[in-house]
Amino acid sequence: MQTTAIMMHETGGTDVLKYETVDLPNPKEDELLIRVDAVGLGFGEVLYRMGIYVQQTVLPTSLGNYAVGVVEQAGPGVTGWKAGDRVTVLPTFEMNTYSVYGKHAIVPASSAAPYFEQWTPEENAGIWMQAITAYGALIHYAKIQSDDFVLLTPASGGVGQAAIATAKRAGATVITTTRTQEKAQMLKDLGADHVVVTDEEDISDRIREITNGQGVRIAFNALTGDLTTKLAGDVVSKGGTIIMYGGIGGQETVLPYPQLITRGITIQGYTLYELTYHAENLPGLIDYVKEGVADGTYKPNVDKVFPFEKIAEAHDYMTAGSTKGAVILQVHN
Amino acid sequence: MQTTAIMMHETGGTDVLKYETVDLPNPKEDELLIRVDAVGLGFGEVLYRMGIYVQQTVLPTSLGNYAVGVVEQAGPGVTGWKAGDRVTVLPTFEMNTYSVYGKHAIVPASSAAPYFEQWTPEENAGIWMQAITAYGALIHYAKIQSDDFVLLTPASGGVGQAAIATAKRAGATVITTTRTQEKAQMLKDLGADHVVVTDEEDISDRIREITNGQGVRIAFNALTGDLTTKLAGDVVSKGGTIIMYGGIGGQETVLPYPQLITRGITIQGYTLYELTYHAENLPGLIDYVKEGVADGTYKPNVDKVFPFEKIAEAHDYMTAGSTKGAVILQVHN
Repeated sequence: MQTTAIMMHETGGTDVLKYETVDLPNPKEDELLIRVDAVGLGFGEVLYRMGIYVQQTVLPTSLGNYAVGVVEQAGPGVTGWKAGDRVTVLPTFEMNTYSVYGKHAIVPASSAAPYFEQWTPEENAGIWMQAITAYGALIHYAKIQSDDFVLLTPASGGVGQAAIATAKRAGATVITTTRTQEKAQMLKDLGADHVVVTDEEDISDRIREITNGQGVRIAFNALTGDLTTKLAGDVVSKGGTIIMYGGIGGQETVLPYPQLITRGITIQGYTLYELTYHAENLPGLIDYVKEGVADGTYKPNVDKVFPFEKIAEAHDYMTAGSTKGAVILQVHN
Repeated sequence: MQTTAIMMHETGGTDVLKYETVDLPNPKEDELLIRVDAVGLGFGEVLYRMGIYVQQTVLPTSLGNYAVGVVEQAGPGVTGWKAGDRVTVLPTFEMNTYSVYGKHAIVPASSAAPYFEQWTPEENAGIWMQAITAYGALIHYAKIQSDDFVLLTPASGGVGQAAIATAKRAGATVITTTRTQEKAQMLKDLGADHVVVTDEEDISDRIREITNGQGVRIAFNALTGDLTTKLAGDVVSKGGTIIMYGGIGGQETVLPYPQLITRGITIQGYTLYELTYHAENLPGLIDYVKEGVADGTYKPNVDKVFPFEKIAEAHDYMTAGSTKGAVILQVHN
């Protein structure tokens, strides 16, 4: 069959993204052919478009690895999914092998996760990536417990909000930061137990006070720059861990050598791919999110929806950098 | 009783170290009074003398936390040790609570480990600290196995040599680096499977070749500066760990943010204190070193012995920084 896909034949700005009619083969063994309803966009696709992502840009290529749609055909050997099923495609693959920026897509059946019927396709495309990113860091790796203090910097974006929900679900005490009073109430409403307003309060003093001097065992941090040294120096407890993700700010960050060594601090670099590239992790992760949706932990959090024709605008919006939740490409409706 | 101890009443250069006659109380509950035969010196004592160590310098104070001697009196409640026993005192305490720079010392009984009769007191004071530092990093934390590739940078000092022995005992493939051919044969004789001569060979290319492209799972690294970025970028395997200790070189080290995140690399700061401050870790650690001595893994490695009267020279020697093994203060002989 033929379909329309967003393709690129060179790396560069948004002008390299082209709408093209492409041939789609029948799904092979353990593959699904899906009609794409909505794509959950990520900043990784901007980097992939520019040729500077962790996934190598192999031209020509389409993009995207998180979507919601309907199974049109299941390949040989596929169990659990059949034509007509609504399905979520999780980011378990590199975009140089499979991709979802199109009216239809071929995806590995192992990437398929349930669709939540109570929500729209756009809402479904704005919950999984955020939830599994938080789950992977806080539950799979950090194994947070009810007696843990967890610091989230920042916490107002989509992943940050999912992280608050995940840490609260584990019973931990959640501390977040924000620069001004403006967002403090919002963070409390989202479930943060304590909000440090960094323009007015010293983070070290406040963390000492909140944690009775011990510090937080886990800091889930997307901010570059001097904060890392502060975290390692006295915000994180001795033997504690800073999980780094995102890289917001793009400032050079010094490795806080003496603090790291003398306080036994671990800095763990993290993306959700460490988890999702390994098929054996997927069932546990899918179950966790399903249970979290059922008990109200995870809710859709859509910031902005762009129509299929407006991928360039969507990429520009993500590049501008102040997203407050999921950015969605609406394909079929 | 009275004894001679090396005391300091202010922080500073080696001139603050004074030989003084001090009163020693009877050992209290769970303490040992020992006659000190040899002290295993460490660079931490130089930093403690200067008032810039992780252990706070509380004046007046003596120094040192690793020694070999003979039990003169066991305090109430001590089991397993009696007057006349030869004993090793492990660095399990802060120097502002107990210390061993003296003709006699009071130490916690929980810090006591066996003495190896086949070796001199000086040799006994040059094996434990090195072995438990390597054990803690490679076995307790990294849990290295026979299918692991382990990189040791550097490997020619006392801890590095113990690390080669420890990694080989676990069956891992050991890779070390050295700047010139000069030390390459020595490192091979010590058990290294591969030696990368960094003035002549590209470390990334050689590691790729040795590990069939996957990289090393563990790098045990004491070097500051640009090496960390190289390690995170392609020397350590995806999901692998850089254990940082020592801080040799004192250069500023950039946190390799993108490599850390996109490759899921963990940087773990480490000193042996993380292990030895927790009494529950000591029996396993002591058993491991005893077995390692019995099977020939660990051998004494004394670089230089200073007489008790020459502590200033000994500190200067450690500050000069090119020790090739243990530095020992001989107290009684």
